[in-house]
Amino acid sequence: MDRQQLVEQIRKKQSFLCVGLDTDIKKIPEYLKGGKDPVFTFNQTIIDATAPYCIAYKPNLAFYESMGLSGMKALQETIDYLKENYPHHFIIADAKRGDIGNTSSMYARTFFEGYNVDALTVAPYMGEDSVKPFLSYPDKWVILLALTSNPGSHDFQLTTDEKGERLFEKVIRKSQDWGGNTDNMMYVVGATQGELFNAIRKCAPKSFLLVPGVGAQGGSLQEVCRHAIISDCGLIVNSSRGIIYASHEKDFGQAATKKALALQQQMSIELQKIGLK
Amino acid sequence: MDRQQLVEQIRKKQSFLCVGLDTDIKKIPEYLKGGKDPVFTFNQTIIDATAPYCIAYKPNLAFYESMGLSGMKALQETIDYLKENYPHHFIIADAKRGDIGNTSSMYARTFFEGYNVDALTVAPYMGEDSVKPFLSYPDKWVILLALTSNPGSHDFQLTTDEKGERLFEKVIRKSQDWGGNTDNMMYVVGATQGELFNAIRKCAPKSFLLVPGVGAQGGSLQEVCRHAIISDCGLIVNSSRGIIYASHEKDFGQAATKKALALQQQMSIELQKIGLK
Repeated sequence: MDRQQLVEQIRKKQSFLCVGLDTDIKKIPEYLKGGKDPVFTFNQTIIDATAPYCIAYKPNLAFYESMGLSGMKALQETIDYLKENYPHHFIIADAKRGDIGNTSSMYARTFFEGYNVDALTVAPYMGEDSVKPFLSYPDKWVILLALTSNPGSHDFQLTTDEKGERLFEKVIRKSQDWGGNTDNMMYVVGATQGELFNAIRKCAPKSFLLVPGVGAQGGSLQEVCRHAIISDCGLIVNSSRGIIYASHEKDFGQAATKKALALQQQMSIELQKIGLK
Repeated sequence: MDRQQLVEQIRKKQSFLCVGLDTDIKKIPEYLKGGKDPVFTFNQTIIDATAPYCIAYKPNLAFYESMGLSGMKALQETIDYLKENYPHHFIIADAKRGDIGNTSSMYARTFFEGYNVDALTVAPYMGEDSVKPFLSYPDKWVILLALTSNPGSHDFQLTTDEKGERLFEKVIRKSQDWGGNTDNMMYVVGATQGELFNAIRKCAPKSFLLVPGVGAQGGSLQEVCRHAIISDCGLIVNSSRGIIYASHEKDFGQAATKKALALQQQMSIELQKIGLK
């Protein structure tokens, strides 16, 4: 999916919501656990309940890997289900991969050919040759960690170098010379980072940002938009736990609809402000 | 496996060699490809051929993930085979994981409870809460990326901050306050980094280092030892492609033995020098 197609979905849906499929077998409703394929069944319900209000889904690999082969099967089924029933939704594999060139090529093959998702989160610590293999796939996106949503983001990402440049700024600046463009490179910026969004927009004025941390982690949608929304939106805001675990009972689908709808309505107001309607 | 047990294996084997199981279905001998379970069969031969000369194995997750479910099954079989037949070998999952706390906990569960390996490589970019969940398992090791072997290692890892500290040094210094100790925290330092090993040993005088990059990537074993060997060795040196693809014919097992033995003999000389015999 290229940028124009992504923006068209945002305009049509009046939403830039991504639903994070951090599906933990320990947290899904009890009554599902006895059934066949409980993780996929849970995801299917969440997807059907939220698809009209979001433009993207983000399965978090850790949750599927932790269940071994059955988890990886549930992930594949979830992606297949999305592709068959909701082909215009953008699929992000949240896996935070990155390794030496020949190894990153193998990860690119896994996610962009095997799972055939639209985007993959990538960690920047190992530099250019660890990221470039992911950029060679047309219409596939790299989402590079820049300024994450967690407390540990301040340990290294804010380190200022001799010239006054912070590490997250250097990651954004340098990565723009790696052959990506604003049609296949986004950055992860946590919703909890407040005014630092201004610094991000100075380095990446036109890039899409994937913004986790709204909801369970305490970030505010309005705050993010005030600092970082651009003329074609340029934001995908993720909520995981706040939507998928809104209820632990049989009504978890309806509860997820309610939470996703509430976010979509706030997003619609923000999109009206920038005239994307 | 704790440090004492690891050092005992090094002493006994007169080796600190790790064999990297970067098994690429495209690169294994043709005659294996038609058979049942070719990746596991290949690994089994490599393991039997090299076990007397090494103390560790390091499957690289990218290679198994790229083959989908059958790859993950081959990885599990390889680990099971090691545990059953070579229970004193140290098993490192080279996966370079790291995410917000609740997600890192899931990865820890996957690798330390599911696969039950001894160690996992972890990326430091997201800071303390992304690494700590891995440190809570007794006798399991975190191997944190510090200064990697690839060209891109110079993009960010050498960035010097206002106080003159380089990023890889800051990663080592700060990570030592995260509740790990020299019995469950190692660092990845590429064999290609030459004199920078001196800087590493200033920050981490007693830590074990996992050193990739000898062989295909051009690093030298003698050079690494000159700068970084300590009284109980403190080094695990990895070779992957140089050993496992030493031949692409039916004699790939014998060819691997030859390469592993040659490295073990060089290692033995280095261990004699420090009196670990």
